[in-house]
Amino acid sequence: MADVEAKERKILIAVDEGEESMYALSWAVKNVVSENSNDTLILLYAKPPRTVYTALDGTGMRSDRREGYLFSSDIIQTMEKYSKEVADCVIEKAKRICKDLHNVKVEARVENGDARDVICEMAEKLGADVLVLGTHGYGLIKRAFLGSVSTHCAQNVKCPVLIVKRPKSTAGNK
Amino acid sequence: MADVEAKERKILIAVDEGEESMYALSWAVKNVVSENSNDTLILLYAKPPRTVYTALDGTGMRSDRREGYLFSSDIIQTMEKYSKEVADCVIEKAKRICKDLHNVKVEARVENGDARDVICEMAEKLGADVLVLGTHGYGLIKRAFLGSVSTHCAQNVKCPVLIVKRPKSTAGNK
Repeated sequence: MADVEAKERKILIAVDEGEESMYALSWAVKNVVSENSNDTLILLYAKPPRTVYTALDGTGMRSDRREGYLFSSDIIQTMEKYSKEVADCVIEKAKRICKDLHNVKVEARVENGDARDVICEMAEKLGADVLVLGTHGYGLIKRAFLGSVSTHCAQNVKCPVLIVKRPKSTAGNK
Repeated sequence: MADVEAKERKILIAVDEGEESMYALSWAVKNVVSENSNDTLILLYAKPPRTVYTALDGTGMRSDRREGYLFSSDIIQTMEKYSKEVADCVIEKAKRICKDLHNVKVEARVENGDARDVICEMAEKLGADVLVLGTHGYGLIKRAFLGSVSTHCAQNVKCPVLIVKRPKSTAGNK
Protein backbone atom coordinates (compact mmCIF):
# COMPACT_ATOMS: atom_id res chain seq x y z
CA MET A 1 0.00 0.00 0.00
CA ALA A 2 1.22 3.48 -0.66
CA ASP A 3 -0.03 4.83 2.64
CA VAL A 4 0.33 2.34 5.42
CA GLU A 5 -1.91 4.20 7.84
CA ALA A 6 -4.22 1.92 9.76
CA LYS A 7 -7.33 2.55 7.69
CA GLU A 8 -9.91 -0.17 7.81
CA ARG A 9 -10.85 -1.82 4.55
CA LYS A 10 -13.53 -4.40 3.98
CA ILE A 11 -12.51 -6.77 1.22
CA LEU A 12 -15.46 -8.87 0.10
CA ILE A 13 -14.54 -12.05 -1.74
CA ALA A 14 -17.18 -14.21 -3.38
CA VAL A 15 -16.32 -17.89 -3.19
CA ASP A 16 -18.01 -20.90 -4.71
CA GLU A 17 -17.31 -24.55 -5.60
CA GLY A 18 -15.16 -23.57 -8.59
CA GLU A 19 -11.39 -23.46 -8.58
CA GLU A 20 -11.65 -20.03 -10.22
CA SER A 21 -12.92 -18.38 -7.05
CA MET A 22 -10.20 -20.02 -4.95
CA TYR A 23 -7.58 -18.77 -7.40
CA ALA A 24 -9.09 -15.27 -7.14
CA LEU A 25 -8.94 -15.48 -3.35
CA SER A 26 -5.28 -16.56 -3.40
CA TRP A 27 -4.45 -13.76 -5.80
CA ALA A 28 -6.17 -11.18 -3.61
CA VAL A 29 -4.44 -12.49 -0.49
CA LYS A 30 -1.08 -12.02 -2.19
CA ASN A 31 -1.79 -8.77 -4.03
CA VAL A 32 -4.48 -6.76 -2.29
CA VAL A 33 -4.78 -7.77 1.35
CA SER A 34 -2.36 -5.89 3.56
CA GLU A 35 -0.91 -7.39 6.72
CA ASN A 36 -0.10 -3.89 7.93
CA SER A 37 -3.56 -2.41 7.76
CA ASN A 38 -6.84 -3.12 9.48
CA ASP A 39 -8.20 -5.16 6.60
CA THR A 40 -11.18 -7.40 7.12
CA LEU A 41 -11.62 -10.20 4.63
CA ILE A 42 -15.20 -11.30 4.19
CA LEU A 43 -15.67 -14.64 2.43
CA LEU A 44 -19.12 -14.78 0.90
CA TYR A 45 -20.78 -17.92 -0.36
CA ALA A 46 -24.17 -17.72 -2.09
CA LYS A 47 -26.15 -20.88 -1.44
CA PRO A 48 -28.42 -21.51 -4.43
CA PRO A 49 -32.04 -21.00 -3.47
CA ARG A 50 -34.10 -24.14 -2.93
CA THR A 51 -36.25 -24.66 -6.01
CA VAL A 52 -39.87 -24.68 -5.04
CA TYR A 53 -41.57 -27.64 -6.61
CA THR A 54 -45.32 -27.66 -6.63
CA ALA A 55 -47.51 -30.55 -7.55
CA LEU A 56 -49.87 -29.49 -10.28
CA ASP A 57 -51.81 -32.70 -10.33
CA GLY A 58 -52.80 -35.32 -7.79
CA THR A 59 -50.06 -37.82 -8.57
CA GLY A 60 -47.23 -35.33 -8.84
CA MET A 61 -45.61 -37.69 -11.32
CA ARG A 62 -45.90 -36.01 -14.71
CA SER A 63 -42.44 -36.73 -15.93
CA ASP A 64 -42.63 -34.18 -18.76
CA ARG A 65 -43.04 -31.23 -16.41
CA ARG A 66 -40.54 -30.24 -13.78
CA GLU A 67 -43.27 -28.65 -11.72
CA GLY A 68 -45.02 -32.00 -11.61
CA TYR A 69 -42.65 -33.58 -9.11
CA LEU A 70 -43.67 -33.70 -5.54
CA PHE A 71 -40.74 -34.14 -3.22
CA SER A 72 -41.21 -35.72 0.13
CA SER A 73 -39.88 -33.81 3.10
CA ASP A 74 -37.18 -36.48 3.40
CA ILE A 75 -35.77 -35.66 0.00
CA ILE A 76 -35.97 -31.94 0.68
CA GLN A 77 -34.16 -32.42 3.96
CA THR A 78 -31.44 -34.46 2.26
CA MET A 79 -31.00 -31.79 -0.40
CA GLU A 80 -30.80 -29.08 2.24
CA LYS A 81 -28.22 -31.07 4.18
CA TYR A 82 -26.14 -31.60 1.05
CA SER A 83 -26.34 -27.93 0.18
CA LYS A 84 -25.20 -26.97 3.69
CA GLU A 85 -22.29 -29.41 3.45
CA VAL A 86 -21.16 -27.88 0.16
CA ALA A 87 -21.30 -24.41 1.73
CA ASP A 88 -19.26 -25.56 4.75
CA CYS A 89 -16.72 -27.24 2.50
CA VAL A 90 -16.26 -24.12 0.33
CA ILE A 91 -15.86 -21.84 3.35
CA GLU A 92 -13.39 -24.23 4.96
CA LYS A 93 -11.31 -24.43 1.79
CA ALA A 94 -11.35 -20.61 1.50
CA LYS A 95 -10.29 -20.20 5.12
CA ARG A 96 -7.33 -22.51 4.55
CA ILE A 97 -6.12 -20.14 1.82
CA CYS A 98 -6.22 -17.28 4.36
CA LYS A 99 -4.49 -19.19 7.15
CA ASP A 100 -1.21 -17.27 6.87
CA LEU A 101 -2.86 -13.90 7.32
CA HIS A 102 -2.20 -13.28 10.98
CA ASN A 103 -3.13 -9.63 11.31
CA VAL A 104 -6.21 -9.75 9.14
CA LYS A 105 -9.70 -10.52 10.37
CA VAL A 106 -11.32 -13.24 8.26
CA GLU A 107 -15.09 -13.60 8.39
CA ALA A 108 -17.35 -15.98 6.51
CA ARG A 109 -20.93 -15.46 5.41
CA VAL A 110 -23.30 -17.88 3.75
CA GLU A 111 -26.36 -16.27 2.22
CA ASN A 112 -29.26 -17.85 0.34
CA GLY A 113 -30.03 -16.70 -3.15
CA ASP A 114 -28.82 -16.23 -6.68
CA ALA A 115 -25.09 -15.43 -6.59
CA ARG A 116 -25.52 -12.24 -8.62
CA ASP A 117 -28.14 -10.79 -6.28
CA VAL A 118 -26.44 -11.97 -3.11
CA ILE A 119 -23.06 -10.50 -4.07
CA CYS A 120 -24.46 -7.12 -5.13
CA GLU A 121 -26.65 -6.86 -2.04
CA MET A 122 -23.89 -7.81 0.38
CA ALA A 123 -21.35 -5.45 -1.22
CA GLU A 124 -23.83 -2.65 -0.62
CA LYS A 125 -25.02 -3.78 2.83
CA LEU A 126 -21.53 -4.34 4.24
CA GLY A 127 -20.10 -1.22 2.64
CA ALA A 128 -17.32 -3.21 0.99
CA ASP A 129 -14.27 -1.24 -0.14
CA VAL A 130 -13.51 -3.73 -2.87
CA LEU A 131 -15.23 -6.81 -4.24
CA VAL A 132 -13.10 -9.68 -5.54
CA LEU A 133 -14.53 -12.21 -7.98
CA GLY A 134 -13.15 -15.17 -9.84
CA THR A 135 -14.43 -15.76 -13.31
CA HIS A 136 -15.14 -18.89 -15.29
CA GLY A 137 -14.02 -17.26 -18.48
CA TYR A 138 -16.82 -18.76 -20.52
CA GLY A 139 -16.70 -18.27 -24.26
CA LEU A 140 -18.95 -15.90 -26.11
CA ILE A 141 -21.83 -18.31 -26.68
CA LYS A 142 -21.95 -19.78 -23.21
CA ARG A 143 -21.70 -16.30 -21.70
CA ALA A 144 -24.58 -15.07 -23.79
CA PHE A 145 -26.82 -17.82 -22.45
CA LEU A 146 -25.60 -18.10 -18.91
CA GLY A 147 -24.82 -14.49 -18.28
CA SER A 148 -21.75 -13.74 -16.25
CA VAL A 149 -21.74 -13.16 -12.52
CA SER A 150 -18.62 -11.03 -12.82
CA THR A 151 -20.02 -8.83 -15.60
CA HIS A 152 -23.29 -8.38 -13.74
CA CYS A 153 -21.54 -7.45 -10.50
CA ALA A 154 -19.02 -5.16 -12.18
CA GLN A 155 -21.91 -3.25 -13.71
CA ASN A 156 -24.11 -3.11 -10.62
CA VAL A 157 -21.85 -2.91 -7.59
CA LYS A 158 -20.78 0.59 -6.58
CA CYS A 159 -17.39 -0.26 -5.07
CA PRO A 160 -14.30 -1.22 -7.07
CA VAL A 161 -14.52 -4.74 -8.47
CA LEU A 162 -11.47 -6.93 -9.02
CA ILE A 163 -12.09 -9.71 -11.52
CA VAL A 164 -9.47 -12.43 -11.41
CA LYS A 165 -9.31 -14.88 -14.27
CA ARG A 166 -7.43 -18.09 -13.70
CA PRO A 167 -4.51 -18.43 -16.11
CA LYS A 168 -4.99 -21.10 -18.77
CA SER A 169 -1.94 -23.10 -17.65
CA THR A 170 -3.37 -23.50 -14.14
CA ALA A 171 -6.87 -24.15 -15.44
CA GLY A 172 -5.49 -27.05 -17.43
CA ASN A 173 -4.58 -28.90 -14.24
CA LYS A 174 -8.16 -28.99 -13.14
CA MET B 1 0.66 -7.14 0.60
CA ALA B 2 0.61 -10.41 2.46
CA ASP B 3 4.08 -11.35 1.31
CA VAL B 4 6.38 -8.41 1.07
CA GLU B 5 9.07 -10.18 -0.91
CA ALA B 6 10.48 -8.09 -3.71
CA LYS B 7 8.51 -9.62 -6.54
CA GLU B 8 8.07 -7.43 -9.55
CA ARG B 9 4.54 -6.57 -10.59
CA LYS B 10 3.46 -4.67 -13.64
CA ILE B 11 0.34 -2.66 -12.90
CA LEU B 12 -1.21 -1.37 -16.10
CA ILE B 13 -3.57 1.56 -15.66
CA ALA B 14 -5.65 2.87 -18.54
CA VAL B 15 -6.11 6.62 -18.36
CA ASP B 16 -8.21 8.95 -20.47
CA GLU B 17 -9.74 12.43 -20.36
CA GLY B 18 -12.44 11.38 -17.91
CA GLU B 19 -12.31 11.96 -14.20
CA GLU B 20 -13.31 8.31 -13.76
CA SER B 21 -9.92 7.04 -14.89
CA MET B 22 -8.09 9.48 -12.62
CA TYR B 23 -10.21 8.32 -9.70
CA ALA B 24 -9.35 4.71 -10.58
CA LEU B 25 -5.66 5.60 -10.68
CA SER B 26 -5.82 7.32 -7.28
CA TRP B 27 -7.66 4.32 -5.83
CA ALA B 28 -5.07 1.92 -7.19
CA VAL B 29 -2.19 4.04 -5.90
CA LYS B 30 -3.71 3.90 -2.40
CA ASN B 31 -4.95 0.31 -2.44
CA VAL B 32 -2.93 -1.82 -4.83
CA VAL B 33 0.46 -0.27 -5.48
CA SER B 34 3.01 -1.24 -2.88
CA GLU B 35 5.87 1.02 -1.91
CA ASN B 36 7.71 -2.01 -0.55
CA SER B 37 7.74 -4.10 -3.69
CA ASN B 38 9.23 -3.73 -7.11
CA ASP B 39 6.02 -2.50 -8.68
CA THR B 40 6.05 -0.77 -12.03
CA LEU B 41 3.09 1.41 -12.81
CA ILE B 42 2.37 1.76 -16.51
CA LEU B 43 0.03 4.59 -17.45
CA LEU B 44 -1.59 3.82 -20.79
CA TYR B 45 -3.44 6.33 -22.92
CA ALA B 46 -5.16 5.22 -26.11
CA LYS B 47 -5.15 8.01 -28.66
CA PRO B 48 -8.25 7.68 -30.84
CA PRO B 49 -7.29 6.68 -34.38
CA ARG B 50 -7.40 9.39 -36.99
CA THR B 51 -10.53 8.93 -39.06
CA VAL B 52 -9.62 8.44 -42.66
CA TYR B 53 -11.77 10.61 -44.85
CA THR B 54 -11.81 9.91 -48.53
CA ALA B 55 -13.30 12.05 -51.21
CA LEU B 56 -15.75 10.03 -53.22
CA ASP B 57 -16.50 12.74 -55.71
CA GLY B 58 -14.58 15.60 -57.21
CA THR B 59 -15.83 18.33 -54.94
CA GLY B 60 -15.54 16.40 -51.75
CA MET B 61 -18.42 18.44 -50.45
CA ARG B 62 -21.41 16.08 -50.33
CA SER B 63 -22.79 17.15 -47.00
CA ASP B 64 -25.04 14.09 -46.68
CA ARG B 65 -22.10 11.67 -46.62
CA ARG B 66 -19.33 11.72 -44.03
CA GLU B 67 -16.95 10.17 -46.49
CA GLY B 68 -17.58 13.12 -48.79
CA TYR B 69 -15.43 15.54 -46.83
CA LEU B 70 -11.94 16.21 -47.96
CA PHE B 71 -9.77 17.70 -45.26
CA SER B 72 -6.81 19.81 -46.15
CA SER B 73 -3.49 18.77 -44.68
CA ASP B 74 -3.64 21.93 -42.51
CA ILE B 75 -6.78 20.75 -40.79
CA ILE B 76 -5.40 17.24 -40.37
CA GLN B 77 -2.22 18.66 -38.86
CA THR B 78 -4.21 20.81 -36.44
CA MET B 79 -6.30 17.83 -35.40
CA GLU B 80 -3.19 15.72 -34.87
CA LYS B 81 -1.60 18.45 -32.80
CA TYR B 82 -4.71 18.81 -30.67
CA SER B 83 -4.88 15.07 -30.18
CA LYS B 84 -1.24 14.97 -29.06
CA GLU B 85 -1.83 17.81 -26.63
CA VAL B 86 -4.76 15.97 -25.07
CA ALA B 87 -2.58 12.87 -24.67
CA ASP B 88 0.22 14.89 -23.03
CA CYS B 89 -2.24 16.58 -20.71
CA VAL B 90 -3.80 13.26 -19.60
CA ILE B 91 -0.40 11.68 -18.97
CA GLU B 92 0.82 14.73 -17.04
CA LYS B 93 -2.30 14.72 -14.85
CA ALA B 94 -1.88 10.99 -14.22
CA LYS B 95 1.78 11.42 -13.30
CA ARG B 96 0.86 14.10 -10.77
CA ILE B 97 -1.37 11.53 -9.01
CA CYS B 98 1.65 9.20 -8.75
CA LYS B 99 4.10 11.86 -7.54
CA ASP B 100 4.24 10.55 -3.96
CA LEU B 101 5.25 7.06 -5.03
CA HIS B 102 8.98 7.24 -4.47
CA ASN B 103 9.95 3.58 -4.77
CA VAL B 104 7.71 2.75 -7.68
CA LYS B 105 8.71 3.08 -11.30
CA VAL B 106 6.13 5.05 -13.27
CA GLU B 107 6.08 4.72 -17.04
CA ALA B 108 3.77 6.30 -19.57
CA ARG B 109 2.69 4.95 -22.94
CA VAL B 110 0.57 6.54 -25.61
CA GLU B 111 -0.72 4.16 -28.25
CA ASN B 112 -2.91 4.81 -31.27
CA GLY B 113 -6.15 2.95 -31.63
CA ASP B 114 -9.50 2.11 -30.17
CA ALA B 115 -9.20 2.03 -26.37
CA ARG B 116 -10.62 -1.49 -26.11
CA ASP B 117 -8.12 -2.96 -28.56
CA VAL B 118 -5.17 -0.95 -27.28
CA ILE B 119 -5.78 -1.91 -23.64
CA CYS B 120 -6.23 -5.63 -24.36
CA GLU B 121 -3.19 -5.73 -26.65
CA MET B 122 -0.92 -3.90 -24.22
CA ALA B 123 -2.00 -5.99 -21.23
CA GLU B 124 -0.95 -9.05 -23.22
CA LYS B 125 2.20 -7.56 -24.74
CA LEU B 126 3.57 -6.13 -21.49
CA GLY B 127 2.60 -9.19 -19.47
CA ALA B 128 0.67 -7.03 -16.99
CA ASP B 129 -0.01 -8.57 -13.59
CA VAL B 130 -3.13 -6.52 -13.13
CA LEU B 131 -5.09 -4.09 -15.28
CA VAL B 132 -6.84 -1.15 -13.62
CA LEU B 133 -9.73 0.61 -15.34
CA GLY B 134 -12.09 3.37 -14.39
CA THR B 135 -15.63 3.11 -15.57
CA HIS B 136 -18.16 5.65 -16.71
CA GLY B 137 -20.99 3.71 -15.16
CA TYR B 138 -23.29 4.29 -18.09
CA GLY B 139 -26.89 3.19 -17.67
CA LEU B 140 -28.33 0.15 -19.36
CA ILE B 141 -29.41 1.83 -22.58
CA LYS B 142 -26.27 3.87 -23.15
CA ARG B 143 -24.14 0.81 -22.37
CA ALA B 144 -26.02 -1.30 -24.88
CA PHE B 145 -25.27 1.19 -27.64
CA LEU B 146 -21.80 2.34 -26.69
CA GLY B 147 -20.50 -0.89 -25.32
CA SER B 148 -18.31 -0.70 -22.28
CA VAL B 149 -14.54 -0.61 -22.33
CA SER B 150 -14.38 -2.15 -18.87
CA THR B 151 -16.73 -5.02 -19.72
CA HIS B 152 -14.89 -5.72 -22.96
CA CYS B 153 -11.50 -5.74 -21.26
CA ALA B 154 -12.68 -7.79 -18.27
CA GLN B 155 -13.88 -10.43 -20.71
CA ASN B 156 -10.87 -10.42 -23.00
CA VAL B 157 -7.81 -9.67 -20.92
CA LYS B 158 -6.16 -12.67 -19.31
CA CYS B 159 -4.75 -10.97 -16.22
CA PRO B 160 -6.83 -9.82 -13.23
CA VAL B 161 -8.85 -6.70 -13.98
CA LEU B 162 -9.73 -4.12 -11.35
CA ILE B 163 -12.71 -1.99 -12.31
CA VAL B 164 -13.02 1.14 -10.22
CA LYS B 165 -16.29 3.03 -10.33
CA ARG B 166 -16.26 6.59 -9.07
CA PRO B 167 -18.64 6.99 -6.12
CA LYS B 168 -21.76 9.02 -6.91
CA SER B 169 -20.94 11.69 -4.33
CA THR B 170 -17.60 12.43 -6.01
CA ALA B 171 -19.09 12.15 -9.49
CA GLY B 172 -21.55 14.87 -8.55
CA ASN B 173 -18.73 17.37 -8.18
CA LYS B 174 -17.73 16.99 -11.77
